Amino acid sequence: MITVNVELGDRAYPIHIGSGLIGQTELFAPHIAGKSVTIVTNTVVDPLYGETLRAALAPLGKDVSTVVLPDGEAYKNWETLNQIFDALLTARADRKTTLIALGGGVTGDMTGFAAACYMRGVPFIQVPTTLLSQVDSSVGGKTGINHPLGKNMIGAFYQPQAVIADIGALATLPERELAAGVAEVIKTGAIADAEFFDWIEANVESLNRCEPAALAHAVKRSCEIKASVVAADEREGGLRAILNFGHTFGHAIEAGLGYGEWLHGEAVGCGMVMAADLSVRVGMLDEASRARLVRVVEAAKLPVRAPALGAHRYVELMQVDKKAEGGAIKFILLKRFGETHIGRAPDEAVQATLAASVASPGTPG
Amino acid sequence: MITVNVELGDRAYPIHIGSGLIGQTELFAPHIAGKSVTIVTNTVVDPLYGETLRAALAPLGKDVSTVVLPDGEAYKNWETLNQIFDALLTARADRKTTLIALGGGVTGDMTGFAAACYMRGVPFIQVPTTLLSQVDSSVGGKTGINHPLGKNMIGAFYQPQAVIADIGALATLPERELAAGVAEVIKTGAIADAEFFDWIEANVESLNRCEPAALAHAVKRSCEIKASVVAADEREGGLRAILNFGHTFGHAIEAGLGYGEWLHGEAVGCGMVMAADLSVRVGMLDEASRARLVRVVEAAKLPVRAPALGAHRYVELMQVDKKAEGGAIKFILLKRFGETHIGRAPDEAVQATLAASVASPGTPG
Repeated sequence: MITVNVELGDRAYPIHIGSGLIGQTELFAPHIAGKSVTIVTNTVVDPLYGETLRAALAPLGKDVSTVVLPDGEAYKNWETLNQIFDALLTARADRKTTLIALGGGVTGDMTGFAAACYMRGVPFIQVPTTLLSQVDSSVGGKTGINHPLGKNMIGAFYQPQAVIADIGALATLPERELAAGVAEVIKTGAIADAEFFDWIEANVESLNRCEPAALAHAVKRSCEIKASVVAADEREGGLRAILNFGHTFGHAIEAGLGYGEWLHGEAVGCGMVMAADLSVRVGMLDEASRARLVRVVEAAKLPVRAPALGAHRYVELMQVDKKAEGGAIKFILLKRFGETHIGRAPDEAVQATLAASVASPGTPG
Repeated sequence: MITVNVELGDRAYPIHIGSGLIGQTELFAPHIAGKSVTIVTNTVVDPLYGETLRAALAPLGKDVSTVVLPDGEAYKNWETLNQIFDALLTARADRKTTLIALGGGVTGDMTGFAAACYMRGVPFIQVPTTLLSQVDSSVGGKTGINHPLGKNMIGAFYQPQAVIADIGALATLPERELAAGVAEVIKTGAIADAEFFDWIEANVESLNRCEPAALAHAVKRSCEIKASVVAADEREGGLRAILNFGHTFGHAIEAGLGYGEWLHGEAVGCGMVMAADLSVRVGMLDEASRARLVRVVEAAKLPVRAPALGAHRYVELMQVDKKAEGGAIKFILLKRFGETHIGRAPDEAVQATLAASVASPGTPG
């Protein structure tokens, strides 16, 4: 087991990474202070790991209940969130009840937001079971739900007590979801660590094959990078925005197609290709680096061709992005692997990227 | 104008108290950094003070929009909250958009919670227009909405940029709502300042008559006391719970009758009488003090007789109170004016209080 610490003062917490962690009582024990625990999971994950987790909690003598939500980004909304509140209130959960998110990013984001809001805040533990949530969404305290007009528009910054990332859980992950997780791994390397990007390039096939050693390294390095960025800028005043590389275009794809059509990681994969295209057009990135990024995204079995939503619709959706200010879209652009630039881009360049990405993403300009 | 400062480090903010403040541009100017402002108000308050506020904001050159919600505690729910989110997203409000809550406690609590959650947090200003919200709910950062199973169950601790309490706005307040505000003034004196309690006893008629000087003193002293309690315990780890004197019974009354049937302050008025009765029964408070409290509550034209919900239902509702832990109800009891005790109470005493309060609240035992 490897442990990465997220240094956030009195909100600091550990990320434990390894195989078979869901069953280890001693990892949960230090983080459950009250008398009751509510596990929040979904219809896919509960049959796979619910019993293992409940068995791990049993020796602690807590009152354990489970809420099973429908699976998928399409359910990341108020109605599903309210199922958690209903269950907590029906079970008479109090301010010391610990919530445990057992599942992917949607489960983690909704459970974290429920924990942030229930009685104005109760403790929670993240047990991410997808690669995407292990490398990204379970780290950093961003929680929330979607609104028909925008992704993650309603939410809170709220840190967990601990993240327990069981690499073993990735064995049951569908290929498409594994690829979606690799997208965030690629992103992390691209924005922050050229050496890690090289490693991903060399090991993308091992990740595709779900090799534990490769996955463990990818999760560890991604968490380390994300933890250091979050520690420096918890509430996204500046630096943290670099983690949104590929997300400005990606969120527009997700919202434009309807949440759940593309997986978040798929949209980010394609969004990175688009952001790299834009970076070349504004003269920041060299063509060879762009081509390398496209090849890695393709090798990870992620889409590199954007859906044809229409340029007007793309711009409209990007204007409601949380990074936008007064309607001006802020892009995370790449200067080279490991270095980004945050700023606006000329409309012509954005239009050209949109045209090229939809038509033929591999050959911009 | 008097200013009380709430000392919360980097979340500190001023409470300005005086007549005619809603129209003063310079009070708003320092707290609006972005390009746009969304006023959240309701169908009763907007026709009274909406134009005055918009005129005050006009010289600042901001993009100002207004969301008008239905009026009343019955609407303090997710559906109404979502009207704010819809309006913000439709207006393309960004992370620097300032929300202004113009109205009573319901408007302030919902606007504050919307500000806490919209894009994971935008700035907001409280402009409370009821006595209740001026002395209580606009101060301290508690925000939230009700759930059918409990009041304020979903919410956040989130501090405003400033509170602008215009005493002049109280002139249009219905008598019943004024009395509801006096309930929280009485509570503040009872729990924290015997001298202030004496002053309230002597001036309750002036408050009933809405005399500006009396109101200004009541608001100032209540805010000072609440601000010092909140500064010592922002997230209700301990001391802050004393502010819930009368609220354990009061919340049960509100939830049991259905939100909106009794005003919050009315329920608190009756709840204080019940809490004082319980305090006498457990041997903490002397009978003379209890009788004084009942007389002041009555003089403020507040109910002192509890609705007949049935003792079982009262206990059930109090067990989901946010202060309860593992089903054990925590009561805020009075030892003497200015001194409280937080703890459990024997079931027999609680049952006796419930029986006496419903039957004949003036004569316990």
